Amino acid sequence: MKKLDSTVLARRANQIKEELRQKLRKPYKQVIDLYSADTHTAGVKPLSFVRQVLAACLYPDLVKSNTLPVDVRQRAQSLLGECAGGSVGSYTATAGIPEIVHRISEFITKRDGGAPSDPENIYISPGSQWSLRNILKVLVNSQASPRTGVLTPWPCYPITNFTIKELGGVTVPYYLSEEQGWELQVEELHRALDSAKGLCNPVTLYVINPGNPAGYVQSRKTMQEVIRFASEKRLSLLADEVYQECVHGEKSEFLSYKRVLSEMGPPLSDTVELASFHSASKGFMGECGLRGGYVELVNLDPDVMKCIYKLFSTDSCAPVLSQIALDLMTNPPQPGDPSYPLYSEETQHIKTMMVHNVKRVFEVLNSLPGFSCQPVEGGGFAFPRLHLPPKAIQKAKEMEMKPDLFYCMRLLEEAGVLVQPGMENGPKEGTHHIRFCIITPEDTMEEMLSRLSSFHTQFMKDFS
Amino acid sequence: MKKLDSTVLARRANQIKEELRQKLRKPYKQVIDLYSADTHTAGVKPLSFVRQVLAACLYPDLVKSNTLPVDVRQRAQSLLGECAGGSVGSYTATAGIPEIVHRISEFITKRDGGAPSDPENIYISPGSQWSLRNILKVLVNSQASPRTGVLTPWPCYPITNFTIKELGGVTVPYYLSEEQGWELQVEELHRALDSAKGLCNPVTLYVINPGNPAGYVQSRKTMQEVIRFASEKRLSLLADEVYQECVHGEKSEFLSYKRVLSEMGPPLSDTVELASFHSASKGFMGECGLRGGYVELVNLDPDVMKCIYKLFSTDSCAPVLSQIALDLMTNPPQPGDPSYPLYSEETQHIKTMMVHNVKRVFEVLNSLPGFSCQPVEGGGFAFPRLHLPPKAIQKAKEMEMKPDLFYCMRLLEEAGVLVQPGMENGPKEGTHHIRFCIITPEDTMEEMLSRLSSFHTQFMKDFS
Ligand SMILES: Cc1ncc(COP(=O)(O)O)c(C=O)c1O
Ligand SMILES: Cc1ncc(COP(=O)(O)O)c(C=O)c1O
Repeated sequence: MKKLDSTVLARRANQIKEELRQKLRKPYKQVIDLYSADTHTAGVKPLSFVRQVLAACLYPDLVKSNTLPVDVRQRAQSLLGECAGGSVGSYTATAGIPEIVHRISEFITKRDGGAPSDPENIYISPGSQWSLRNILKVLVNSQASPRTGVLTPWPCYPITNFTIKELGGVTVPYYLSEEQGWELQVEELHRALDSAKGLCNPVTLYVINPGNPAGYVQSRKTMQEVIRFASEKRLSLLADEVYQECVHGEKSEFLSYKRVLSEMGPPLSDTVELASFHSASKGFMGECGLRGGYVELVNLDPDVMKCIYKLFSTDSCAPVLSQIALDLMTNPPQPGDPSYPLYSEETQHIKTMMVHNVKRVFEVLNSLPGFSCQPVEGGGFAFPRLHLPPKAIQKAKEMEMKPDLFYCMRLLEEAGVLVQPGMENGPKEGTHHIRFCIITPEDTMEEMLSRLSSFHTQFMKDFS
Repeated sequence: MKKLDSTVLARRANQIKEELRQKLRKPYKQVIDLYSADTHTAGVKPLSFVRQVLAACLYPDLVKSNTLPVDVRQRAQSLLGECAGGSVGSYTATAGIPEIVHRISEFITKRDGGAPSDPENIYISPGSQWSLRNILKVLVNSQASPRTGVLTPWPCYPITNFTIKELGGVTVPYYLSEEQGWELQVEELHRALDSAKGLCNPVTLYVINPGNPAGYVQSRKTMQEVIRFASEKRLSLLADEVYQECVHGEKSEFLSYKRVLSEMGPPLSDTVELASFHSASKGFMGECGLRGGYVELVNLDPDVMKCIYKLFSTDSCAPVLSQIALDLMTNPPQPGDPSYPLYSEETQHIKTMMVHNVKRVFEVLNSLPGFSCQPVEGGGFAFPRLHLPPKAIQKAKEMEMKPDLFYCMRLLEEAGVLVQPGMENGPKEGTHHIRFCIITPEDTMEEMLSRLSSFHTQFMKDFS
């Protein structure tokens, strides 16, 4: 049976929005869209400092006028001095504007407690996903037999799994432990690797930290185990760290793989191959639409580095405004700067919002029969589990949908709430989840939880 | 012998710029950089209207203030209404914001004298080169034996040739006729196709019109012949039309392949598969750094279209500001709009500059012994031929450089002029060329021609 995929959800959501515009009567006035971690879509305001500098770079008359704070204007002016011909409309070097790449490297060193970072190992790209694909291209040999394997978590960011398959590779899932708050357990990595025997040739291990959609933040101990495992099994490491600014748990702290690896010292710190990814799309900035990300490469063979340079150079360069966005993300205003108070207020506001939301999600969902939700320690999503009644599963089957998609379709139709079915995050038979963005204004989150609660209670009654 | 490639040029140019900053004495005060068709680097000013709308979209406070013309503010406001959450920081649909894609489609229909265009067939991407690579990915089967062939012109835009090889394909060069002003001759296509027999399996034909670096603008008759050839030989057509705004010859006119194909009527117009590319990087806008391009697909199989959708979707979407730039390029201010007079003055200024420059280049270079230059009818480059003395060729050999690279290195070192050696545009043994951008202010062009003339005269003397 060919099952419907979740594009039906997006299509239906667009229809419903249109119907609402045409004043069709519905039990709600607006669709709440928490499908992706696209915080501006979810109602979060962009950071003023970021937008002001970008606007001034685009339209340098603003540098001269006094509409904008003086540090904004200075920053824009000095950035323009780093662009060829003084324009954000010029191509840049393949890896990005050298001065920006340099400052990103300094940011990494500082973030990582002094672990050295070399600008030569950093590439800026139109989104971090784009970098990840280029690195995967080098790792996955599309002609190999047996095929190249990539260990990926379940649940996973779906585009990564799709990319691996598109390149001719095989995904080898390792399951995060839901009961332990989605912890990554090294025994499970061993199991996954064993399961690949005879089926494919695993060469790399992809980790997402903080997790998407599983809001787990890895501890130093876990990361050390992962690094030792990678070293022992001769796997390279791909660390997707785009949510590094999003840590909500009081006891959680983000540590980068680069840092932990470096602090483990030789021989590991000199040998384990690592690519780590960061992005302007997530965190406080949430500038998905600008498409800016970067990768830092550690311990790669010089020949492989040459190959990576060539791959990146086929697209000339990343958009200059995304490069600038990354510069602003990694070098924000400092105390004493005219823009600092507003910047600090805005980021603090988002932090408070996230902490509030994850707390409320945990409380409300765990109070509903048929839902169980792990604490969301980090990242942009909640990924609660649904315990669906057999009648609902039967009904979904009749509709040619997976049960979680069926649930999400109903939720959209009846309550105007758009979330993602867990099935999109990779297959794990027998369990059902939904995923939704938690970076949204508090009142939107409350409204969503209230709609979800009423809908869910009725749904469970209808199919009991 | 491993020859040096032209990255040595870029590196040396950067060193020289640094040396000039450190006040080292040189026979020139500044490097004139006409290496790529990056008009802002070459000193052309961005269009005010474009920058104003983009700035207002980024920083919507500008929509409310009265620093900007009213049509700019209206345009920004209506564009923001088309972005999810009213922010350019949100992801969009894979192909782009639907309303923008729709307007691009209307632009195409109007440009092509009514030939219908379907928005469903248009994809926006971060640069046109990126679209081209995705389409090539679908066409080139990396595992095929014999390998997939792509007919590409000589001289060619080098990144295209590189991309084809990277994807596992083979380039099959067809030579444009330099003596006939770089005309594309269909007999040559036949010869090229024959030359591929037994070596590879050609599936598609790549044309650049107006040409880069060869400034030829194809006539309707040529295009009809190319289309018939493609149909007869069952090749699809890839039409790189990024220079469509750059037509300098009085008798030349840009016609799109889409238009000519459509006007040829059935069965050709219903069967020949065509992908045509356009970009915000070139033309009057010259916004390379924004990375915005699009492809329109015609007569493709629905299954192939699905595959293309999937490929584009792995990068989420093109940067929203690039999408907006394309909207502004295809829907500029109209007579009566407050921004029209300035817009019209600025574009007219660039037009006049291009016409002046190609005329001067033609006059000056053809007056120098050892140079011959075809008229530049369109595009962003001159591609004059160098007739180098045997002693210069010998000297180049000793230096482990191709003769044209050797010439360019000397030109850079001695005259501070950065241009591209012809060898980068594909191999054609025995002829030597240089390529330089002609979209630059008149005084820069004059200064460059004057430096080039003195240098060249001395060079020919030194090696006579
Ligand atoms: C884990 C993870 N990695 C990468 C990305 C993509 O980020 P970018 O917009 O930088 O391509 C996302 C986006 O949601 C994500 O969740
Ligand atoms: C013929 C041709 N096609 C494509 C491109 C790339 O354009 P984009 O910046 O849209 O990727 C160029 C850039 O110089 C070009 O000359």
